Amino acid sequence: MDTTQKIILTGDRSTGPLHLGHYVGSLANRVALQNSAKQYIIIADMQALTDNVENPQKVHDNVLEVALDYLAVGIDPAKSTIFIQSLIPQIAELTMFYLNLVSVNRLQRNPTVKTEIAQKGFGETVSAGFLMYPVHQAADITIVKANTVPVGEDQLPVIEQTNEIVRAFNRIYGCNVLVEAQAVIAQVSRLPGIDGSAKMSKSLGNAISLSASADAVVKQVMLMYTDPQHIHVADPGRIEGNTVFTYLDIFGTDTERIAQMKEHYQRGGLGDVVVKKYLIEVLNAFLDPIRMRRAEFAQDRAYVKQLLLDGSAATYAVAERTMREVKEAMHLIYT
Amino acid sequence: MDTTQKIILTGDRSTGPLHLGHYVGSLANRVALQNSAKQYIIIADMQALTDNVENPQKVHDNVLEVALDYLAVGIDPAKSTIFIQSLIPQIAELTMFYLNLVSVNRLQRNPTVKTEIAQKGFGETVSAGFLMYPVHQAADITIVKANTVPVGEDQLPVIEQTNEIVRAFNRIYGCNVLVEAQAVIAQVSRLPGIDGSAKMSKSLGNAISLSASADAVVKQVMLMYTDPQHIHVADPGRIEGNTVFTYLDIFGTDTERIAQMKEHYQRGGLGDVVVKKYLIEVLNAFLDPIRMRRAEFAQDRAYVKQLLLDGSAATYAVAERTMREVKEAMHLIYT
Repeated sequence: MDTTQKIILTGDRSTGPLHLGHYVGSLANRVALQNSAKQYIIIADMQALTDNVENPQKVHDNVLEVALDYLAVGIDPAKSTIFIQSLIPQIAELTMFYLNLVSVNRLQRNPTVKTEIAQKGFGETVSAGFLMYPVHQAADITIVKANTVPVGEDQLPVIEQTNEIVRAFNRIYGCNVLVEAQAVIAQVSRLPGIDGSAKMSKSLGNAISLSASADAVVKQVMLMYTDPQHIHVADPGRIEGNTVFTYLDIFGTDTERIAQMKEHYQRGGLGDVVVKKYLIEVLNAFLDPIRMRRAEFAQDRAYVKQLLLDGSAATYAVAERTMREVKEAMHLIYT
Repeated sequence: MDTTQKIILTGDRSTGPLHLGHYVGSLANRVALQNSAKQYIIIADMQALTDNVENPQKVHDNVLEVALDYLAVGIDPAKSTIFIQSLIPQIAELTMFYLNLVSVNRLQRNPTVKTEIAQKGFGETVSAGFLMYPVHQAADITIVKANTVPVGEDQLPVIEQTNEIVRAFNRIYGCNVLVEAQAVIAQVSRLPGIDGSAKMSKSLGNAISLSASADAVVKQVMLMYTDPQHIHVADPGRIEGNTVFTYLDIFGTDTERIAQMKEHYQRGGLGDVVVKKYLIEVLNAFLDPIRMRRAEFAQDRAYVKQLLLDGSAATYAVAERTMREVKEAMHLIYT
C-alpha cells in the first residue's frame, strides 16, 4: 500500500434529508475529492439512534434518502464507497476496545458533546450512548484507516479524541496498526440558516433541503432574513449579514449582476422582494439538475439499496482486515 | 422452542486461574445444572480487558487456563456451551444499542461498580469501558436469551440493570424479543480467603487455585487464619470464623471426625497444626481428581482450543439469530 495515499472518512447521520448547508459544508467537497482520494462515506444509522432511540423507523428510512441526496449531488459510487454503519459490526467491536482507553471524565470534557448535551436539554439524563459517541466515531474513522477527515470547526474535538485513542492504542500495544487522522476544515464551512442564524440545521427549522420543490424554495426564500432596518424600498440597505446576499454570493454565477444589485441595495431603491426573486431563480437553477438526478435514482430504489449493500460489503472486508490487525496487536487471536 | 426451558448464562473473566472460591460459589453449581438446563459459559476476555488494558497477553493466555479449570472440575462441553466473548461480535453490537437506553447517571449509581471503582482506586480516571461493563454484561446475558443467571449477592445489581434494559427495549420497540433474567444466588455463596477475609480472591492474594500443587496447598493452609486467641495448644479455641474449620465443613467428608475435632479444639488441647494437617489431607483429596483431569486435558491444548472454537461457533449462530430479531424490532434491516 502506498502510505501517502489519502484515505478519507466522511458521512452523515441518517436523521433527515440533507440540505444546502450540507452541500456547501461538505457534499461539494466530497464530489471534488472523490477523484483524487480513496473516500469512504458512512451513513451513521447507529449514531443517529443515540438521540433518536424511540424513532428507529425514521433512522432507517433516511438511510435511503441520504443516499439519494449523495447520488443527486454527484457522489459517484464507482469512486466513493458509501456504507451503512450498522452493517459493519467491527465498528462496535473496536468501540468496545477503545472505551477502555478513554476516561469518563475525558468524555464529559469534550466541548462538542458538552454543547450538544446543553442544546438538546439532556442534562443529567444523558445516555451513555450519546456521551461516548466520539469514541464510536473514532472507530468509524480508524476502522478504514482514514488519514483525512473533513470536518466543521465544531467537530475538531472529535478528531482530537480519535488521535488520542490512536496514540494510546499504538503505544500500549507496541504497534502502528492505527493511523492518526488529519482534520481538514472545508473552505466555505458554514451556510447561515434562512433565519440568519449562524448555521443551517434541520432541527432549527431553518434549512432548505436538497430535495425541496421549486415551490418550497419560493416559500423559504420569501421568509428569509435580510436587513431588518431596510423597511421602505427607497431606504439604503445593508448587505453584510443579509442572508439573501450571502446565498447569492455562494450559489450565484452572474457575479456582475450580483455586484450591481449589491450596489443598488446599499444605495437604496432596490426592494427585498426583487432580490429574493432573483435568489429563487438562482437556487432553482442550482437545484434543478440535483432534483432531476434524485428523481431518476428514486425510480430505482432497489438499485440504490444494492449500491449501499455493495459499499457496505467492501467496507466490511477492509474492517475485517483492520480488526484482525487490532486483535493481533492485542494478542487476542484464538484461531 | 419450549418457553419454560431454563437457559443459563454464567462465566468468568479470563484474568487468572480459578480457585476454590470459584468452585464453591459457582463451578459446583454449573456441574450440577448442566444436566437439566441449556447452559452457556462465557469466558469474558473483553470484560477482562476493562481493568487489564495494558496486559492483553495475560487475558489471552488465561482463556485456555480457565477452560482447563472448567474441564478439570467436570464441566462437560457436550452439555455446556463454552464460548469466548470476543469471538461473538454481536455482543458488542448489542451493547452499542443498549448504551442508548441507559443514562450515565444510572451507571454511576450502580452499587457493584461504585464499590469496585473504590476498591481498584480508579477514582476520577475510571474508564468508560469499566463504567459501562454492566451494559456489556446485559448483552452477554440477553444475546443467548438466558432466563437464569447464577450470581453472587454482590452481582445482583447487574441483573437489575439487565432487566431494566430488557424492559426498556421491549417497551420502546413494541416487542418481546428480549427475555428478563432471573438471578439465582448459589446456596454456599462464598468461601472466605485463607486470611479469613470474607471473600477468596486472586487479587487479594488469599486464594488456593484449583491448579495448585500439593506443596502449594501445604504452604497456603499453614498460613491460614484460625483463632488469634488460641496461642497455646492447651488453650480453648474458637471454631466460629476459624477459616480452617470453615473449609473442613465445606470440603471434608468425614463429618464425625470433624465434629470430634471441633469439640476437642473448643475444649483445648488440639493444636492448629494438627487441624491444618488434616485440612491439607482433605483438600488434596478433593483436588487430586481435578488435578488429574486438568493434566490430561493440558496434554492436548489443541483439543481444548477446538472445544472453545466450536462452542463459540454455536453461540455465534444463536447470537446472530437474536441480533436479527433485535434489528427487526428496531426496523434496522436493510437486506
